[in-house]
Amino acid sequence: MDQPRFARRMNGVRPSFIREILKAAEDSGVISLAGGLPSPSLFPVEDLAVCAARVLAEDGSSALQYGATQGHGPLREWVAARCAARGVRVEADEILITTGSQQALDLLGRVFLDPGDRVAVEAPGYLGALQALGAYEPRFCPVPLNLDGGDPAALRRALRRRPKLYYAVPNFQNPSGLTYSEDCRRCITQVLRGCETLLVEDDPYGELRFEGRDLPPLAANLEGRGVLLGSFSKTVAPGLRLGWVAAPRAVLSKLVIAKQGADLHSSPLAQRILHRYLTECDVEAHLARLQDAYRQRRDRMCTALGAHLPSGTSWTRPEGGMFLWLTLPPGVSAQALLEEAVAQGVTFVPGSSFHVDGSGAGKLRLNFSHPTPERIDEGIARLGRALQRLLAPSPDGRRRPAPRKEEIEPCQG
Amino acid sequence: MDQPRFARRMNGVRPSFIREILKAAEDSGVISLAGGLPSPSLFPVEDLAVCAARVLAEDGSSALQYGATQGHGPLREWVAARCAARGVRVEADEILITTGSQQALDLLGRVFLDPGDRVAVEAPGYLGALQALGAYEPRFCPVPLNLDGGDPAALRRALRRRPKLYYAVPNFQNPSGLTYSEDCRRCITQVLRGCETLLVEDDPYGELRFEGRDLPPLAANLEGRGVLLGSFSKTVAPGLRLGWVAAPRAVLSKLVIAKQGADLHSSPLAQRILHRYLTECDVEAHLARLQDAYRQRRDRMCTALGAHLPSGTSWTRPEGGMFLWLTLPPGVSAQALLEEAVAQGVTFVPGSSFHVDGSGAGKLRLNFSHPTPERIDEGIARLGRALQRLLAPSPDGRRRPAPRKEEIEPCQG
Repeated sequence: MDQPRFARRMNGVRPSFIREILKAAEDSGVISLAGGLPSPSLFPVEDLAVCAARVLAEDGSSALQYGATQGHGPLREWVAARCAARGVRVEADEILITTGSQQALDLLGRVFLDPGDRVAVEAPGYLGALQALGAYEPRFCPVPLNLDGGDPAALRRALRRRPKLYYAVPNFQNPSGLTYSEDCRRCITQVLRGCETLLVEDDPYGELRFEGRDLPPLAANLEGRGVLLGSFSKTVAPGLRLGWVAAPRAVLSKLVIAKQGADLHSSPLAQRILHRYLTECDVEAHLARLQDAYRQRRDRMCTALGAHLPSGTSWTRPEGGMFLWLTLPPGVSAQALLEEAVAQGVTFVPGSSFHVDGSGAGKLRLNFSHPTPERIDEGIARLGRALQRLLAPSPDGRRRPAPRKEEIEPCQG
Repeated sequence: MDQPRFARRMNGVRPSFIREILKAAEDSGVISLAGGLPSPSLFPVEDLAVCAARVLAEDGSSALQYGATQGHGPLREWVAARCAARGVRVEADEILITTGSQQALDLLGRVFLDPGDRVAVEAPGYLGALQALGAYEPRFCPVPLNLDGGDPAALRRALRRRPKLYYAVPNFQNPSGLTYSEDCRRCITQVLRGCETLLVEDDPYGELRFEGRDLPPLAANLEGRGVLLGSFSKTVAPGLRLGWVAAPRAVLSKLVIAKQGADLHSSPLAQRILHRYLTECDVEAHLARLQDAYRQRRDRMCTALGAHLPSGTSWTRPEGGMFLWLTLPPGVSAQALLEEAVAQGVTFVPGSSFHVDGSGAGKLRLNFSHPTPERIDEGIARLGRALQRLLAPSPDGRRRPAPRKEEIEPCQG
C-alpha cells in the first residue's frame, strides 16, 4: 500500500512512553523503577490454579462460551457489596465488568467526548488515562495537586470551562502517591455538586492502603454525578485483565453499548476464576500480605533515598499504592537525569510524561511495588550516582547540557 | 445528574439486536437459531483444563503479570506459521493479538475512520462489523453478494467513492453462508489492486470447512493492501476472548498504539493457555470433530427445512461455518415472521439487521452450530408452523399485517 490513509485522531499519537520503557527494562541488568507492575512474587498463583481447575471442571461450558456484555452476574454482585462496604451505594446492575480499568477509561472517552470537548485532569495525572481519553481529541484542563489532594479553587476555575469529565485518583495517586484528605474530599465534592461535570474517580490502589484510615470515595457523596472505577490488576493479578466501572444507569447503559462494539464482553473464564478466588479464598489475608510487603518496600525506598540522594531533593511518602514522586534539586531536568540513569542501569518515568503541557521537568515517578527490597537499594544507589554525575561539573567547568528535547516526548504530541 | 452530555457518536446507537435476542433466548423453552454461538458440547474443556494447570504451575508469574501490547510472542509465531500454511506470507511481528476479533474491527475503525469516511461492506454483512465500524460514523457503501461471492462490478462502482476500507468475509459469510469462489477471489483482488482501499478480510470460520477445497485468503494476493483477521472463538472457545489481526507494519504499528489505549493488552493467562493448547494438544483432531458435527447439523437443518417450509422458500447450503440464509416467499416479511416465531418458541435474526439501508426484509439468518440436532428438527418445525400461520388468511380473509416498523430496528439507527 502506498500510504495508508489513517484517521485524523492518529496524528501525533505516539506509543506509550511507559510501555516503551517496560520493553527496554526487560534486560534484567537494568533495575526498573519505571513501570507500574505489582510484585509477581505476591500473586496468589496457587489459589488461582485451584480456582481455574474448579471453574473448568464445574462450569467449563459456560466459562468458555460467549457471555453477557455487562459481565458475570455474581462478580458484579461481589463488586456492588464491596462498594457498599466502602460507603458507595450501588446495585449489581450499575456495574460493568471491563477488560482492565484501562478499558473503562476508553469507554468513557467513547461515550462522552467529542473532539474539542474539555476534560479536567489532575496535574500531574495518570499517563494511561491521558492516553485513553486523549484518543478522543479533547482539550485537557489541568487541575494542580496540593499535598492534600486536588486543588478545589483550581478545580472551580477549570469547571467554568464546562469540562464533561473530571478525572481523579484520590487514593495514592498515580504518579504522585498523594491522597486526598478528608477536608479536600469534602471541598471537591462541594465544588462538583453545583455543576454538570461528571467525576471519573479511578481507584485501582484503594485496597493497597498500608497506613492511615480508609476514606470513602468521593463518588459516595455525589449521588449520580460520579463514576467509580476499580481494578483487580493491583489486588489480584493484571493478567486476568479485569476491572469494573460503577455508574448511574443512564451512563452505564451507554457504556454497555460501547463495550459491545469494543470487544463484546470480557473473558467469562477469567471472570469466573476471579469470582471463585474472591469468594472461596482468603482475600483479606492476601491483601494484608500485599500491604505489608508494599509498606516495607516504600520504607526501604525512602530510607535509600535519604542515604543516596543529595540535599535539595525531596519526595512524597505515600500511605498506600505503588509509587512515590520525587522533586529534583532546582534546575535539574528529569529527562537529562534519565539519560545518566540508564547508563547507570536504572530507569524511572520523568515527570513531564504526566503533564499535558510539558511541565513537571524537575519531577519523576518511582515505583516501589515491583522491585525486590534488594533491587530497591541498588536502584536508588544507582539513581544517586546518576544524579551526582549530572550535578558534577564537566571538564570545562559547566554542567552537562540537557538532552535533545525530541528524545523523550511528553504523552500528548 | 440532570442529563448526561454524551458524545455525538452515541446518537442513534442502539444495543445489538443479536445480543438482545441472545438475552431473551436464555429461556430454555425457546429454541434459538439466532445467535452465533459455537456448540458448547464440543469445547475442548479437559484439554484446556490441563493447559491451564500447566501454565499456572510453570509460568504463573508471567501469565498473571502485565504483558506486551502486541501479544505473547510464541502465540504470534503460531499464527504466522498457520497463515503461511494457507498462502499468506506474514511474520510474527506483523501479528497483533486482540481481545476477540471484535476488537480488531474496533481498532481498525479507530485507526482509519474519520466521521463521514466511506466503508464498503458486503450486503448483507456481518452485524458486529457494522456496529464496530459504525461507531466511527462512516458512510457505508453496500456491495451486494452474488451466489459466488462479492460482486466485482458493484465493488468497482463502490471504489469510485474512495472508501478507506472494504470489509469482507469470503468464507461461509456471516450471515449468508456463501463462499467467494476462486474466480470471484481473482476478480475481487484484481479490482482492489488498482486502488487505495484497504481490504479488511475477516476469516473467523475458515477452519470450519466441512466440504470442498480450502481457498487461499484474498490477502494472500494483495501484497500489503490487505488486513487479515482471525479468531479462536469458533475453533477453540469464545470465552478465551482471543483473536488476531495480520497487517502490514505501517498499519500494525498504529493498531498497537490504539490497543494500548483500549485495554493495554489481551490476557496473558488466556494467551498462554491457548498457546499450550495449540502446540501440546491435537488441534487437527479437534477441528475434524467440529467439522463433522457442524456438517451433520447443516444437513439436519437443510433436511428439516425441506420437510417443513412451504414452496417459494429457498436457502443457501454452506460448505462450512455456522449459518445459512433463508429467502421467504415473495411478500413475506421476516420481521412479521419473527413475531409468530417467538410465539411458537423459536428465534432467528431477520435479514434487515444485516443491511445498512433497511433492505433484506424477505430474508433471515439461521444458526446451525449451537442447537443440538434434535433442537434443530424441532426449531425448524416451529419455524414452519409460524410461517404457515403467517401465510394463512386471517378470519377476515386478508393476510395479517406486518408488525410496526419500530419494533425491530436495523443496526444503523
